[in-house]
Order: sequence, then structure tokens, then C-alpha cells
Amino acid sequence: MSKKIKLGILGGGGDSLIGVLHRVASFINDNYQIVGAVFNPNFEDNMAFAKQIDIPTDRIYKDFDTLIEEELKLPKEDRIQVCSVLTPNFLHFPMVKKLLENGFNVICEKPMTTTYEEAKILQATMEKSKTVFALTHTYTGYPMVRQMREMVKAGAIGKVHKVDASYYQGWINPIIHDKEKRASTWRLDPKKAGISCCIADIGVHAFNMIEYTTGLRIKSILADFNYVYDDNPMDVDGTVLVRMDKHVKGLIRSSQIATGEENGLSIAIYGDKGGLRWEQESPNQLFVLSDDKPLQVYKPGHGYNSELSLGGTKLPPGHPEGIFDAMANIYLGVARAVRGEAYNDGEFPTMLDGVRGMDFIESTVASNKQGNVWVDLH
Amino acid sequence: MSKKIKLGILGGGGDSLIGVLHRVASFINDNYQIVGAVFNPNFEDNMAFAKQIDIPTDRIYKDFDTLIEEELKLPKEDRIQVCSVLTPNFLHFPMVKKLLENGFNVICEKPMTTTYEEAKILQATMEKSKTVFALTHTYTGYPMVRQMREMVKAGAIGKVHKVDASYYQGWINPIIHDKEKRASTWRLDPKKAGISCCIADIGVHAFNMIEYTTGLRIKSILADFNYVYDDNPMDVDGTVLVRMDKHVKGLIRSSQIATGEENGLSIAIYGDKGGLRWEQESPNQLFVLSDDKPLQVYKPGHGYNSELSLGGTKLPPGHPEGIFDAMANIYLGVARAVRGEAYNDGEFPTMLDGVRGMDFIESTVASNKQGNVWVDLH
Amino acid sequence: MSKKIKLGILGGGGDSLIGVLHRVASFINDNYQIVGAVFNPNFEDNMAFAKQIDIPTDRIYKDFDTLIEEELKLPKEDRIQVCSVLTPNFLHFPMVKKLLENGFNVICEKPMTTTYEEAKILQATMEKSKTVFALTHTYTGYPMVRQMREMVKAGAIGKVHKVDASYYQGWINPIIHDKEKRASTWRLDPKKAGISCCIADIGVHAFNMIEYTTGLRIKSILADFNYVYDDNPMDVDGTVLVRMDKHVKGLIRSSQIATGEENGLSIAIYGDKGGLRWEQESPNQLFVLSDDKPLQVYKPGHGYNSELSLGGTKLPPGHPEGIFDAMANIYLGVARAVRGEAYNDGEFPTMLDGVRGMDFIESTVASNKQGNVWVDLH
Amino acid sequence: MSKKIKLGILGGGGDSLIGVLHRVASFINDNYQIVGAVFNPNFEDNMAFAKQIDIPTDRIYKDFDTLIEEELKLPKEDRIQVCSVLTPNFLHFPMVKKLLENGFNVICEKPMTTTYEEAKILQATMEKSKTVFALTHTYTGYPMVRQMREMVKAGAIGKVHKVDASYYQGWINPIIHDKEKRASTWRLDPKKAGISCCIADIGVHAFNMIEYTTGLRIKSILADFNYVYDDNPMDVDGTVLVRMDKHVKGLIRSSQIATGEENGLSIAIYGDKGGLRWEQESPNQLFVLSDDKPLQVYKPGHGYNSELSLGGTKLPPGHPEGIFDAMANIYLGVARAVRGEAYNDGEFPTMLDGVRGMDFIESTVASNKQGNVWVDLH
Repeated sequence: MSKKIKLGILGGGGDSLIGVLHRVASFINDNYQIVGAVFNPNFEDNMAFAKQIDIPTDRIYKDFDTLIEEELKLPKEDRIQVCSVLTPNFLHFPMVKKLLENGFNVICEKPMTTTYEEAKILQATMEKSKTVFALTHTYTGYPMVRQMREMVKAGAIGKVHKVDASYYQGWINPIIHDKEKRASTWRLDPKKAGISCCIADIGVHAFNMIEYTTGLRIKSILADFNYVYDDNPMDVDGTVLVRMDKHVKGLIRSSQIATGEENGLSIAIYGDKGGLRWEQESPNQLFVLSDDKPLQVYKPGHGYNSELSLGGTKLPPGHPEGIFDAMANIYLGVARAVRGEAYNDGEFPTMLDGVRGMDFIESTVASNKQGNVWVDLH
Repeated sequence: MSKKIKLGILGGGGDSLIGVLHRVASFINDNYQIVGAVFNPNFEDNMAFAKQIDIPTDRIYKDFDTLIEEELKLPKEDRIQVCSVLTPNFLHFPMVKKLLENGFNVICEKPMTTTYEEAKILQATMEKSKTVFALTHTYTGYPMVRQMREMVKAGAIGKVHKVDASYYQGWINPIIHDKEKRASTWRLDPKKAGISCCIADIGVHAFNMIEYTTGLRIKSILADFNYVYDDNPMDVDGTVLVRMDKHVKGLIRSSQIATGEENGLSIAIYGDKGGLRWEQESPNQLFVLSDDKPLQVYKPGHGYNSELSLGGTKLPPGHPEGIFDAMANIYLGVARAVRGEAYNDGEFPTMLDGVRGMDFIESTVASNKQGNVWVDLH
Repeated sequence: MSKKIKLGILGGGGDSLIGVLHRVASFINDNYQIVGAVFNPNFEDNMAFAKQIDIPTDRIYKDFDTLIEEELKLPKEDRIQVCSVLTPNFLHFPMVKKLLENGFNVICEKPMTTTYEEAKILQATMEKSKTVFALTHTYTGYPMVRQMREMVKAGAIGKVHKVDASYYQGWINPIIHDKEKRASTWRLDPKKAGISCCIADIGVHAFNMIEYTTGLRIKSILADFNYVYDDNPMDVDGTVLVRMDKHVKGLIRSSQIATGEENGLSIAIYGDKGGLRWEQESPNQLFVLSDDKPLQVYKPGHGYNSELSLGGTKLPPGHPEGIFDAMANIYLGVARAVRGEAYNDGEFPTMLDGVRGMDFIESTVASNKQGNVWVDLH
Repeated sequence: MSKKIKLGILGGGGDSLIGVLHRVASFINDNYQIVGAVFNPNFEDNMAFAKQIDIPTDRIYKDFDTLIEEELKLPKEDRIQVCSVLTPNFLHFPMVKKLLENGFNVICEKPMTTTYEEAKILQATMEKSKTVFALTHTYTGYPMVRQMREMVKAGAIGKVHKVDASYYQGWINPIIHDKEKRASTWRLDPKKAGISCCIADIGVHAFNMIEYTTGLRIKSILADFNYVYDDNPMDVDGTVLVRMDKHVKGLIRSSQIATGEENGLSIAIYGDKGGLRWEQESPNQLFVLSDDKPLQVYKPGHGYNSELSLGGTKLPPGHPEGIFDAMANIYLGVARAVRGEAYNDGEFPTMLDGVRGMDFIESTVASNKQGNVWVDLH
């Protein structure tokens, strides 16, 4: 009998790109099989999609509650073990909560919830359960991001004194400058998209990248948003000054109006002994800087990398792996955790990352609203 | 019932990297399920590997002949539809031949055979059968390689007058300079590895890249090999002058002693109206040159790309896909062909590519042996 | 008789790097000859240096006042026409003032003065005289920076809505973390170096780059400085949020603790029709971005560039020119202005750039001191 | 009295780009003053040009013979010390010969002569005189090219076993494909341009780059030229296989039909301990490769560079210097040699480089003519 982990999927049907990303990631390391799902709220679409991707349809449920109900009727060994939550943001909280309460392990897309309060509730729920929870800050799955984390931890750049992370995209440009379009896209409607657009969607990735790679906590922030038009109620661009402490500062830059930029997540970390720079669009290069030695370019798969990094590479150096492989690395870490195998800290982002992220989003919105003042995170 | 294509796998067990690449590629687009295999010549290892990657073991066979025999006993609709041949090079010919003769579609690793003669026999065999055959020149699966092909075809760079393809690696460096090691590695033993090391392993990829992207045929070649030591009988470096015709020339550079190079496959194509440049280690950039306009950098997923290119991209621009995705694109093309669906010329390399490749390898060996003279391909 | 412009030089003797940069720049386009100088405050060193660089010593003066006095005695046609001021920052104001009052044209290193008030006085002084004044924001002399300016002006990227300029260096890293060294370097002593270190030295270049390339004025700023240690009174890192107006925002990032960074001046400008990106360390590439067309890379010397850009290139495309050539372009513009020839707006930074720069520096210091609040520029 | 070296210039008037390059290079390090010249064969143009660039006209001569005659009448201390020969190729030989015979030091543009025989005569002439002779293979003046040379010499990459140098341009593309234009350009007329176009103009630079950086001598070559059209008698593209010895091989690639390429000179050197890669269009980066360590990027001005390299950098790291600075470094070396000061081997290319270059050009032409056979250099 297969020892593959039984995977359930919520959302991600139809043309969903995030659905493809998670599904492929689950396959890559031979660890998961999809056994149940609610891909779409509409049952017909749901079934059609299951057929399209050739998943057995016996456990394609009409809705989330039915999934829970029916799965719980199954003997434990047949039941969904991990459920991936890829639904619209506002559904993350109720779904994850119920999943955790019923003992399902969860892989959740970000943002984890729509409020910090919800995030804290999920955290408490998880602590009471004995479940594994992973938040898919996908970019932490790249081998060179993992290498950054391990190098900082090992002291390769000394004491960190400056960070600069950015996430620049330009996709909203053709929308924001068109009065009709900006009034009609759900992404710019606070009722549908929550309190923030740019910061919640991408700024939070840059925030997470800083905390993931440096191991430090951001203590306070000062944010300035750009709405571009008076009739637009949502941030499409935001710069955030951050402080780890009085003498460790940095910034987070995020934009959806950086016209022509595609998926420009980047991070630079400077310490008293060296610096590190990485860019998502060239994920297989990590630049290692020093005062007086030649610039070094680390690449995946070489023996000089850390165990955490090497664990995320499947082929020898020079064979580019990409974002599907990064996400697959997160799924691999979760598989190990679910199976009770040993795994390294850093193999997947956790509930704490989710709580921190929501704290960050709410704090930046507050800072901007109050006139760009410093706001402490919890 | 699943409409996934029933995939058989020969070879690729244990630590095989090529095994991982094919297996993952088969999963990525939801098209295949592995139903049968001979992963290893040793049956115990074979079974153990099947269990490790969680494949049903009922159709894990003790050897290739048994696989053929048993599968043929199954009703046609249950039988393996496509068989991937990942075994050592010398086994490609007998296995592929028997598979084709028995009506199995085949995906074969390169080099297709060990001689041109064998290649011609396979070609004849295939023509008599009604099967699909694909040769995994993986790099043709990259969206920007496909875009190059389509741009040349559409006349974007006018009439091609010069090509320059290279494949530089340095992996054999620590072996070749050690008398013990170079005497003991199978790669440098003609009895085990065939008539060529460097040209057959990587030079042929550069050859295929030229013919794939330009649509032209190389007519004659002049080759110079480097053995580095007198006691080494195998090429570890080779430069090949090529002629399409009297006025269309080019070269193929290949090396396994380009110390520090990882997987440096690249190609430049120049025509009377423009130029194209691509490098495998940065696969998501295609440089488009002209006499008098700014350099352009094409990237995957944009609407300005051709249909063939766009069909090989799953996510929006800026989300790097890599070599697993390139191989998956080839598997996707084969799936369409096997199902009798429409597919574009160029979705997967064919029997002809295999025949051409063997012709190239033998011709270069002959040219070098005869003192670097021009040799015509068939 | 030579029609070369008679150049005087103040400062820049001994090992001065800025001295080399200006001297070479003055030679490059055959426009200047050095006829007089006070290279060093010490007369012996002054004379020795003149001999070392092989300048006639008859007009090497013992001090600045003597230079003025003696030059004024000469017939107008023999007199120094342009005087380059390369002395320590606090001397810029009195020297430039006296030069302008006495009818000498001036090329002045930045920062123009030590206070905004002084800058305003110089501006008034210049307006009363009929002199040419240039401030050497050297980077504006690069052909691709000039191209950026002309493209924005011509509407190539539409209405600008976001700017991001940075200047990252790491040179102070080995000093700042050493208690002895940071206490003893003049750069971190407000009495010697003025009110700011990082912002005044390099942040102001990024500020100028924004105003030079966009043609827009920064209206208000909010600054956050990092001193790294409590006993250090000077900014070695500073991030500045900027507003052109309510809906056009941006930021200036500057650091001298970006360990391992060399001279990392960069700028990105985003408008509703496109984006532009440039980096000083690869000065001959200008990236032109759009929503839906391939990325373009503009390079110097091509016919597709603007007149202002082409005027700054001496050789055909592919022959890298560098920072000496950029400075030479500024000297070339000044030569044209001094001779009363036609020249383009943008050929050299002006008094207004100097006034704006001092305004920026004082405003950022004020903003940081007052707790990171918004401060309006004059 | 000025101790600047008295420089004479032959050719380089009017719009000559090579004239600008040499003139600026002579100024950059305060070592030269132009005292005499024959810029143009037409005396009026000659004088006009002297006035345009503001050179004293008293020693602007009507022709080369007059220059020699008149200069020899001057007392030795007033006479031209170094004469730069920038005239059309066929004039190099007679001019340089006469200059050397009359005791003038010479800086000569490449190709040094039009035949190998002439080159040997010049070599003999120079050996009899006590003059300094430099050939301006400009690219050897780049700090990172010098660093390559010194690293190879110091054993940083071990024993060299493979070299690959290329020089790709596309400038002749719009000419070669136009019947009228290709018939009328002097560059493709053997009577005016000599026996080779592409190899003599640029291939020889790549050849020189290999010998300069490796310190090895190329022993034999096999060349294949592309004329593109039957009515074109001159090579516009050529690939040359090279052998240092039986086990050290390489290639030289040169093209003027690499459409869209600008000035693509590059070199890669591989040894048993490491590799080096450099590209002229990004001259301030030297890539240092190894089997098992991170890729390193060396940049100019850092203390880790060799003395020869550091001597060619004027400003701190991060301030790009370019091709004028590279040529200036060669002029600086010549100045030291002429003054009898100590200088490093490698500061300027010598007569031997010129002889070797002509040997290479004639050998490749012979190899191609004889049907792409191996030809030994002298």
C-alpha cells in the first residue's frame, strides 16, 4: 500500500495558477497523492476539473464542510492527512481553523488570514492541536534563500546592521490608470480584498524574506503608501522603514506600479563582516560581498552550500531549477514533519510567520493612516 | 477511469538523476501515471526503488523482456502506452527497437544509439510501426528555445549566415588530470562508453540546438578533439567547424575540461536582419539583436511570444521555470501526439533528430581521426 | 594663439583622486589648458605638484587670495577663464563667492556649500555676475543618464508616478565598527565634515539624479538615519521618503555601511507608459521597460539615442567609456557655455542643482532630528 | 621646463576615431605633449585640424619625410621623442622603419605591417636601434586583462589546457548583403585593405589576447573563412583552430557578420586548477572559476589585484574606467620605458606582438586558401 501522504485541496481549480503551482509541487518529490478536494465552489466545475486533471472523483466534495464531515467518517489511515488551502483570502481563516480543530495538517497560501486577530486565534488553535501548519511563502523554498539564512546564522556576514528588501511589480499599471478598470477590479475593493492591496499581497513577502533570512524580528515600522488616484482606496505602492532595534535598520519597498517589472522580489543584507544579495528572477545566484575580497557568486548544488540549501536541489550545478521546485521543497519539508521524520528548521514557513505577517500588514496600514508614524509590532 | 497515459520506465532507479528528471517531468502536466517499470537490472533493487517512490509494484518486472511479454498479455487499454528508456547508452538500441516493433510509443534519452547504423535501423523500424518516438534533447523544451525556433522560422533575423553553439562543462577536470582516475572511469573507456565522450555526451546537444532552432541541416563538418593525455583514448574536448552550405557556416564548441563551467550550453544565430543569443544557465532570457535598434530581451509568458513558446510556460512572467519544466514540456508534446491531439512541430525532438545526432557523432570522430578533414553528413 | 580655455584649479593636489578626475576631464576634449592653480595650501607642496604634473609654475600661487589678486592684474584675454574648486567642502562657499564676484566662471565640486543659506547667497551672487557656474554631479555626464532625461522629457514613459534612487557603498564599514577609528576619522566629526556624512556625500547624488532625469522637483521628504553606534554623531546610512506631489512618490536610499558595495548609485523611474532603470557600475546600459513589450537595453553611441546623449559619446558602440568621460562631458558643456556657443540644457548641473542639494541635505537632517517627520523643501 | 614627453602624431586627423583615442590617452597621465604632427596628407586639412584641437602649428609638417628631416635638425632635447603612427595600414611599415632608423621611439596602431616579411624587417631594424616600440593592442591595457596575465603567470589556474577567444562584431552586415556596397567599400578591396579583412582587423586582437594573457605561443592553426558571397574576395568571418602543443588547444572566433554584436572581444582560459573569463564590453569584471569553490568576480582597484593591474587603475573600486583609460595605460608604460624608468613586462605590447600577429594573419590566410589545413607559425 502506498505510503504517499494523502493530500486534500481546497480551491485552485479552473485556470488558477496557484492551483498548478501547489499541485505540481506536491508531485515533485514523490510524497503526495491527491485524494480529496473542493477545487471550486460550484460542484459541476469542481467535478469537471477533477476529471480534467485526472483525479479520482469519489472524494471530490460539494463543499468544505462536507469534506470535513465525510473525511472524518473514514478510518484515520485513509483520511486526508494534509489539506492545502488555496481559496480566496477571506476563507483562509474559517477553513484553516476548522481543519486544525479536526486534526488535519494544513498548507495555507498567504496571507494567512485577513486580520492579525484571526491569525492569533489560528495560532492558539494550532497550539491546542497536534498538527503541522505551513504557510507558503514560496520564495523561502529556493536553495539560495535557504543558503542565505544558514550563512547569516553561521555568522558569515557578522552582525547584521542593514537590510533592504523589495518586491516590485508593474501588473496593476494598466488598471490603475484607467478609471473604469480601477473601480471594477476586486483587488482594489476593500470589501473584497481586505485592508491592503500591495502590502498584503507582496510587501509581506519581502517582510517575511527579511525575518526568514536574518532570523531577526522587525520591531517597528513606518509606512508610506501611494494610491496614485484620489478615488482609489487601496495601496498599490508602499515603502516601509523598518527597525530591528535602534541600530539595525532597513526598509521594505513594494510596488504594483513599477511599470514593466515582473516579479522583482529581492533582498540585500549587510553585516559588519560582509553582505548578501539575492533576486528572485535569477534565483540560482547568491552574491556574497566583502570589504576586501572578490565578489563571490554561490550557486545551488555545490558542496560548499549548507545542508538546508543542498536538500532543496535535485540536479547537479548548472541545471536551473525554478519556482515549482522551490514550492516542492516546502511540500517536502511538510511531508517530513507530517511523517515525524527529522527536518531542519527553515524547511517551511510556520504559523509564526503567518502571525508576524498579519501583524506587519496591520501595522503598516495603521502607520500610513496615522500620517506615517512609527508603529510597533506586537 | 483515469485518462492518464500509462507510462513505463526502463532504468532511472537508485540515485539516477535522469530518473528524477523524467519522473518529475511526467507528473508536471497531469498527463502520465507510472504503471510499469524495470528501474534496475537487479530485481531486489528494482522493487525497493518502486516502493521508495511509491509506485504500485505489481508491474515492476524482473527484466525488459519480461516487461514486454507481460504487458502484451494485458488488454490493449491497460497496457503501457509510452515507455521511457533511461538505461545505459548501449541498451537504447535493442530496447527501443523491440518496443517499437511491439507497438509501444517511446521516449528515449540521448544518444539514441551507439552507431549511425543502429539509428537508421530504428528509423526504419519506427516507420513500419505506428508509434510516437521522442528523443529527450531536453533543452528544446525551454520556452525561449522554442521562441528562437519560431522567430527564425518567421524570418525575424532574415537569412541565417552564421551559427555558434557551445556546450562547456568542467566536470571531467579532476578526473582527467589524475592518472589513476582517468584510467578507471567508464566514461573514458571506449569499450563501455562508445566511440566518443565529449561530443557524444554534450557536443551533440549543441548540434541538435542548431538544427532545432534554425531549421537548417548541417551538411559537412571538420572536427578537432583534445585528449589532453596520450594515455587517454577519449575526447574530452572538441571543436567542430560546420557548414550548412558554402556561405552559411558556424561552429560547435564542446568541452568537459572547461574548468569551473557547469552546464554551459549556449547558442548564437546571426542572420542578415538580426541575431539571437541564448544561454541554458539563464534560460528565461532570449537576447534579440539588430544592427540599429536597442537590444531586446524576450522573456517567457509574454503575449509577444509565439504559440509554441507560450505553450511551454505555466506561470506569469517573472516566475522562473527551469529544466524540469523544460522536460515536462517535451512529455506534454508526446502526450498530445500519443492521444492523437493536435500539436506543433517542435514540441518534441524526433527520430530524425536521433539519426542526425548519430550521423554527427560518427562524422566528427572520423574527421578527427583522419586529421581534421571535412566530412559530409549523410 | 591657443583658443583653449584657461583653467585654474583650487585644491586637487597630492594624492587627490578628485584632482585626477577633474584634470583628466579637462584634457579629454581638447578644450582646456591649466594656466594657474593653488593645488595645496602649502606652497612647497603646491609647486612640487605642479612640477610633478608638468604644469608651468609661473602662475602657481601661494594662496587663493593671491590667485585672485594676480590674475586680475593680467589682461582679460590672458586671465583664468574657468576655475575648478576642489578644496575641502567648507572652502567652497568663500572661494566660489569671491570667484563669481570677480567675474570668473566656476566649476565646483559638490556639496556646493555647507548650508542652504550659503547656497542661496551664491545663487544671488551668480545672478548679479555674468558668469557660468557648474556643479560636478559627475554622474549626469554619462550618456545613458542623459538619455534617461531626454526620454522622460519626450514622454517615453508617460507621466512619472514612482522613483527609486539609491547610492550604496560599504567603505565606512571597517571604520564604523572600530571605536578608535570612528572617533578619529574627520568624516564622522561634525566640526570638520558638517551636519551630515552619508546624505551630504552620496544621498545628495541620488537626489540630484532624480531631479536631473525626471525634470520634477521633490517637494517634501521624511528621513531616517542610522548612526549604528550611540557614540557616533554622524549618519552613515539614511533612507528618505520623497514626494513630488501627493500621487508621485519615491525614495532615496543611501548607505556607507552596505558592506562590500562599491559605488552603487542606481535609479529606477516608473511612469504610466513605461519604466527606466540605470546603474552607475554598468553605466553603458539603460534598461527600458514596458508592460507588454520585450525589455530593451539602450547603449551609447547608437543613432536611436537623443542628441544630448550622443554628444557625450566619442567612440562607436561597444567601446566602453567611463567616469572620466562622464566628467569630461560636463567640462565640454561648460566650455561651450563659456565660449557662448549653443549647448543643451542638461550638459552640466547648475547653481540651482547646488541650491536644491543643500536644501535636501538640511531638510533630511531636520526630518531625522525631529523624529522622522515630513519636511518641505523650499 | 616641462619634462613631458614630446609626442609626434602621424595620421588621426579629421573625424578619425583612432586619433581621438590616442590623443586622449596621451593626455590622461600628464606624460605627453603633442609637439609635431602630420595629421592629414593634405596640408591645409592638417593645419586646420591642428588649430581645431589647439596644437601649436609650428611643427605641423606637410608630409612625413619633412617631419623627419625637420625634426632631425632640432637639438635632441627639443626633438619629438615618441611618434604615434595612426596612418592607413600600408603606411605603417615605411613610416615605422624610417622612424626607428632615425632613433625615434614609436607607438604604432595594429596591424603593424601588411606582411610578415615587413614585420621581420621592422624587428631587425628595431634591434639595431635603441628605441622603444609599442603596438597598440589597446585591450591589453585594461586592468582586468593585466590581472588575467598575472594570475596565469602566478599559477592561479594551474597548467593551461584550453583557450577560447572571440571577437564578434556585426558592423559589416548592412554592407555585405548589398551588392553595390560590398563592391565599393575599401575594406573589402584586397588592393586597398590587404590580404584579410576580418582576421587582420579583429581576429588578430583575439590572437594577441591569448598570447598576452597565457604567456604561451600558438604553434599551428587551421582556419576557415566565410566570404558570404562569391563575388566578395575578403573574409568577413573566420574561425581558427589553434594549438599551443598537442595537448593544449583552443580556438579563435572572429566575425563582422555577427549581426547586432558591437565590439564583442572575449576570452576564456581553462587550466587544471581553474578558469578565467573576461569580456571587453564589461571590462571591469574578471570571472575566476574553479571546480568546487564559488565563482569569484575580480574588479579593478582592489588590493587583491596584482601590481600590473593596480597600476592601470586611477580611481577606487566602483568608478568605471573604460577604453580611453586602457589606451592611456599603454601610453603610460611607454612613457616609463622612454624615460628609462622601471616598468613591468606587460605594460605595452611590443614588436614581438606585431611580428606574431602578422605571422598569424598570413598563416590563417594560407590555411584557408589551402583548404583548411594545419599551418605552422614561424
